Amino acid sequence: MASRADAIPIIGGTGALGYGLALRWARAGHAVVVGSRSEERANETARKLSELVPDAEIEGLPNEVAAKQGPVVFLTVPFRAQSENLNNLREALEPGQLLVDCTVPLAAAVGGKATRTLGVWQGSAAEQAQEMVPDGVTVVAALHTVSAPDLADTATELAEDVLLCGDRKADKAKVARLVEAIDGLRAVNAGALETARIVEQLTPMLISINARYKTHAGLRITDLPDGDHWDA
Amino acid sequence: MASRADAIPIIGGTGALGYGLALRWARAGHAVVVGSRSEERANETARKLSELVPDAEIEGLPNEVAAKQGPVVFLTVPFRAQSENLNNLREALEPGQLLVDCTVPLAAAVGGKATRTLGVWQGSAAEQAQEMVPDGVTVVAALHTVSAPDLADTATELAEDVLLCGDRKADKAKVARLVEAIDGLRAVNAGALETARIVEQLTPMLISINARYKTHAGLRITDLPDGDHWDA
Repeated sequence: MASRADAIPIIGGTGALGYGLALRWARAGHAVVVGSRSEERANETARKLSELVPDAEIEGLPNEVAAKQGPVVFLTVPFRAQSENLNNLREALEPGQLLVDCTVPLAAAVGGKATRTLGVWQGSAAEQAQEMVPDGVTVVAALHTVSAPDLADTATELAEDVLLCGDRKADKAKVARLVEAIDGLRAVNAGALETARIVEQLTPMLISINARYKTHAGLRITDLPDGDHWDA
Repeated sequence: MASRADAIPIIGGTGALGYGLALRWARAGHAVVVGSRSEERANETARKLSELVPDAEIEGLPNEVAAKQGPVVFLTVPFRAQSENLNNLREALEPGQLLVDCTVPLAAAVGGKATRTLGVWQGSAAEQAQEMVPDGVTVVAALHTVSAPDLADTATELAEDVLLCGDRKADKAKVARLVEAIDGLRAVNAGALETARIVEQLTPMLISINARYKTHAGLRITDLPDGDHWDA
């Protein structure tokens, strides 16, 4: 598969969130590139996805190659691997690309609880990502609150919101189009990139609610007006 | 009105959130005690509420007297006034009472933005409250995300969740019953009191969303099981 405008590279696409997103996007007709540190595992996941969605365009590639295959690159790795991955992507990402950071700084990264977070010097994992990407690459934060198991179980009908944080609406609109290509997800403009300091915290709260209610909870913002916020 | 088990004291009941809650609880048949630093303003608000809900039991009292009138006391003051109010309540609150802290540490308290928060040494405004109340008084955090204008406009049908944080389910259940006495509000068990560090951050996020979408947004947790979580 050659690099193409509608392909979606997923760095860490063999993990739970990346896999679930890849599956949903493949079903929605998007070309998906599964990235992994290990080309073998990337291929394995791509093969598995191809069996589930036989008519989809899915390829497995090493992260650094995957990142070159589309304009909007999703980073879906655990927090403890975020810096290393961003370091490895320095030569791969190019000005004009968007990096969608889905990282949540759970305290679990250092052996703490998944219901607590770590403080990140820059304010949030997404702001750390913005500091680390090459000049001209812009970070949008998204997809912190969607359950990976729900994404991976295509029998589950989604009906929830995805909060987007970023400094330019035009960038967020591009990500919103991809998010809303997945049935049942609505993209909500949560504010500037710094708002990721809040949005990243929602994951441990939902993890805590999930444990208590034995569910895969999501989030919905009430009373938003009808009509397409992202249109022009 | 004598102190009674079903009366709801609201410290700062002349403010926007306190007033909206008082109105909704009065309409739901609860006796409400509007507290204020100024007895005159407390009386004024109580009179206004009595005109709107003529058959309701509503009284205006100084905060320190109001706090003695019911078992579950709501604190609905701005963050910059929280410490002062808690100092003033030290002699008024008694062991066994619950204090429901609704405070949000918006940066607006020190002239900053309402879309940002201040760091609170104890972790959250609610944890600061727990440190300041007399021994034997327990703090539950709640009601950060419900729009005060929506509460005050009884033509608005609410349909949203209220996240409760507290260290004992039995305490949260008492607060949940009062929250759910207001039509359209569902109380969700968000976790221990320390989770207020997350929940208090939702207000600036919603303020930011409100500005962008010109609405009074609220929050809904998706995929919670049916049935009454609070029942035993």
